[in-house]
Order: sequence, then structure tokens, then C-alpha cells
Amino acid sequence: MVTTNAPARTGRLAIAGLGPGALDQITPEVAAALQGATDVVGYLPYVARARALVEQAGGSPAVAWHASDNRVELERAQHALALAAEGRQVVVVSSGDPGVFAMAAAVFEAIEHAPAEQSAAWQMLDVQVLPGITAMLAAAARAGAPLGHDFCCINLSDNLKPWAVIARRVQLAAEADFAMAFYNPRSRSRPEGFVRLLELLRAQCEPTRLMVFARAVSTPEEHLHVCTLAEATPEMADMRTVVLVGNSTTRQVGRWVYTPRFYAPEAAEIAAPAPGSAP
Amino acid sequence: MVTTNAPARTGRLAIAGLGPGALDQITPEVAAALQGATDVVGYLPYVARARALVEQAGGSPAVAWHASDNRVELERAQHALALAAEGRQVVVVSSGDPGVFAMAAAVFEAIEHAPAEQSAAWQMLDVQVLPGITAMLAAAARAGAPLGHDFCCINLSDNLKPWAVIARRVQLAAEADFAMAFYNPRSRSRPEGFVRLLELLRAQCEPTRLMVFARAVSTPEEHLHVCTLAEATPEMADMRTVVLVGNSTTRQVGRWVYTPRFYAPEAAEIAAPAPGSAP
Repeated sequence: MVTTNAPARTGRLAIAGLGPGALDQITPEVAAALQGATDVVGYLPYVARARALVEQAGGSPAVAWHASDNRVELERAQHALALAAEGRQVVVVSSGDPGVFAMAAAVFEAIEHAPAEQSAAWQMLDVQVLPGITAMLAAAARAGAPLGHDFCCINLSDNLKPWAVIARRVQLAAEADFAMAFYNPRSRSRPEGFVRLLELLRAQCEPTRLMVFARAVSTPEEHLHVCTLAEATPEMADMRTVVLVGNSTTRQVGRWVYTPRFYAPEAAEIAAPAPGSAP
Repeated sequence: MVTTNAPARTGRLAIAGLGPGALDQITPEVAAALQGATDVVGYLPYVARARALVEQAGGSPAVAWHASDNRVELERAQHALALAAEGRQVVVVSSGDPGVFAMAAAVFEAIEHAPAEQSAAWQMLDVQVLPGITAMLAAAARAGAPLGHDFCCINLSDNLKPWAVIARRVQLAAEADFAMAFYNPRSRSRPEGFVRLLELLRAQCEPTRLMVFARAVSTPEEHLHVCTLAEATPEMADMRTVVLVGNSTTRQVGRWVYTPRFYAPEAAEIAAPAPGSAP
């Protein structure tokens, strides 16, 4: 239902990444989508960031700002889809990149599990995902190049999967000698997960393994802390922190942390079968 | 040696990510660094992209463009450091994000292994890494949200590490049920690596596992191909392709591919110890 007198337009839904925080790390593609939006939907602080960007560029008086609370990703996605199906130009905003532990998957879940009467309309919508600078890469850039070789990326929130899955993934990632990035390492409601993560890492990695605790990168609250696995404590992480763990070759030069591009055969114990596995 | 009559300036080196190709996916932070540069250093097509951006914004007549061939990353990094040490404002450009299989690690390697007479000066330089949209996230955005859950990122070029390391990492990543992103899957000089990768994946993953072949995303040559592991052939990849492999829960809805945020316990065989491992 198009409710304005403007020529009928086809609804459109863009799921846009706002990057880690600084407005100058938002791509022009995302800025243009926000300028053309009738409705911006997202978690409250991200809607505020999108609004700051639009106002910096002179404002867009027609836009409706739909800010919602955390942990209502599916409802937010359904709301955005319903608005787009009415013919509106909707932008769902995520921090970082929308495809990394953010709103893109939630929107496609909402489409897949749409109410029967919406299913066809939602599948026909013009949906676009607009990438952004994800937190681990903003954090890595500040520290140097700790993810400069093969790496993995794990969400530590066990709202979304059993802890046993997380533990097994961390164990296998350490065996593979991946550098690692951990999102959502610690919250007030689940302080124990990150304690367990440090125990897991200590059981498999050497005490001198380098870690980067990167909090609120690119914002006024930015704080970067580099230490060894032996020195790391659970209090170094909170929900605004991304935690990076180097691989066995990660090193420091001056004030920077980096992982060499080359992986020397002499460091390559991982090429051998794991103890106890079949030959 | 500052050779102009302008007030002496401290040299500066920014290692900047140009994103996957489209100029509107370059952050304003990177654009500003290019506007303020005296020297831009990089692989030929990336220098051309940086130049197109600067010219689109009205040009910067004073800038020197230093384009070099592929596979000379260390020499390029040394050249950039030497220019910055002379007091120049240098930007090293990478495609994608400079911290993901790109120039950031090469610059820190060059600093670590600097000639003795340069070592102190290079370590004191103002070096900044400016993040960009990395290829796997641009590719994932075009496909939907295939990396919407824990994932890993592997460079298939065996110039940088023995094939045995790659093979072991792929095996462990499949055991962990990570979604996977592969950079540099195939070149004319080493066509066999990607053949072996498909064999490895077929030995561990079900034939219906979803894959995305994303070539030259955001450029006029963009081509996206979604298929199952059973349907994949080596010819689907080249050096301009990023290959994404879903996890066991990755699915299609309409024309999109996505990996759900939730990982259900019933899908969580990976939580069990691997066969043959100690209890």
C-alpha cells in the first residue's frame, strides 16, 4: 500500500554496513542508500550513527527513523520487509558488515520463514546487501596486520549455539594454526564464556601467543591493548571488544603486531596428522 | 631529504584498502588519504583505481604515481618506506582490505627486516593501516549472507606456504563446520591446487553443500555463480574469483544464499570428539 501521492515506486530493502563507528569509514554506496531512504531501521545506536551521517550531509527531511532495542533482530527484519513490501525505500543498518554476525542473515531468515501471505511478495523484493568495514578488520588495521595470514572468525555468544560447538571450533582452529577473531567475547549476562575461551587457548597455544583486545575502534572510546596469552585476563574484554589471537608466527615489530605472509615449513607441525587420528 | 621549498613535513605512510573494485565502495578515510598524498605506490591496476578516484574528485596535480608489477610486494614496501623516510606523504594501495592477504603484512615485514641503517628511522615512521571492504565480504553481500555464522578465510596460493598446510587447514575447517572463503583459488601457473581443494571438500562435505563463485565483484566483469559441491568444476574459478563454501546449514531462499545465525544442537555433530581422538 503506497500511501503518498508520489508516483508509485517499487519497494526496496538495503541491508547496509556502517563500519566500526567513525563516519569516514562508511562507504559512499551506503551513504547514498541512506540519502535515498524513506525508512531507516536498526538497533538504536546504529540508527543514531546513520542519522548523524545523513545530517552531516545536509539531512533528508522525509526519512522515518525506526530504532529498536537489541536482541530483536528477527522482528526488526520482518518490520523492514513489511515496509519495503508497501513500496518504501528501506535501509536496515548494521554496525560493521551486515554479513558478519549482523542483520543480513536475519533478513534472509525472515524471508524464508515469512507468513504464507507475505512469502511470495517478500521473495520478489529488491533486496541488496551493502558491505561495510567489519570490526575485526578495523581492529586488525589499528594493531598492524595480525590477520595477515589464514584466519577464522568466531562469535562467542552462546545465545546462538551450544558452548560445546564453540569449544570444538576453537580447538580445531588452534590445531589449524589459524589466527582468530572473536566477536561478542563477553557480556554481563554471560561472563564465563571468555574465561573458558582463555582456558581453551592456554591448553593448546604457547604462553607467548600474541593477543589484541580492541575496544570501540574508531570511536572516542577506542582502546587497544596488546599482550600475550599468559598475560590476558577476562576483564580485558567486554561486548564492545573484538579479540584477535595471532597464529604461532605472529610477531611484534615496533608498536605493531603482524602475521607474516609466509608460513615456513619448519613451523608447519600442523601438516602432520593430529595425535590419535588414523594414518 | 625533503626536496621542496614547502615547510618540512614528517613523512607518513598509509596502507589503504581500495575495496573490491567499485569507487563507491572506497571509504572517505581512504579517499582523504589519497587526496593528501605526494606519492601513491602499488600494483598497477590498483594505482589506476586510486588515480581514477582522485581524478573523479577533481585531481591532485602534485601526486607521483608509482605503479609496479605483481609479486614484488616486499620491494614495493621498501620503496614506500624509503619515500616516507624522506618526508613524503605516501599511500600504499591494496585491493580489498590491506590486512587480508595484501600489503599491510608486507610493509611490517619490510620494517622488521630493514637494512641496519634504515631500521630505526622506519620504526619511528607514522604508519597507519586504513581498512577496506575485503573481497570475501563483497562477494558474500552479493550472494546474500553465506558467511553469516562462524567462518574461516584461506589463501590458496601455495607460493606462501606448503600445500600440506593448506590441506590440513581445509580438513580441520570442514571438521569445525566453518563456512569458508578462499582467496587466490587458481592461476595459470598453478591450476592443480583448486582441483585438489574440490577433492578435499568432497571427501568431507555432503554433495549438496552450497558454493558461491564470485568473480570481479562490483566491477563491469562481475559474475556470480551459485552451485553445489557436486556441481562445482575447477574452471569456475580463476585469480579474480573468491570462492565461498557454506557450512552444513547454509541454504537458499529465493535467489539468495545464507547461513543461519543459529546453529542447532541437532546439527552439532562437531561437538563430539573426532574419531580416534582421546576421550
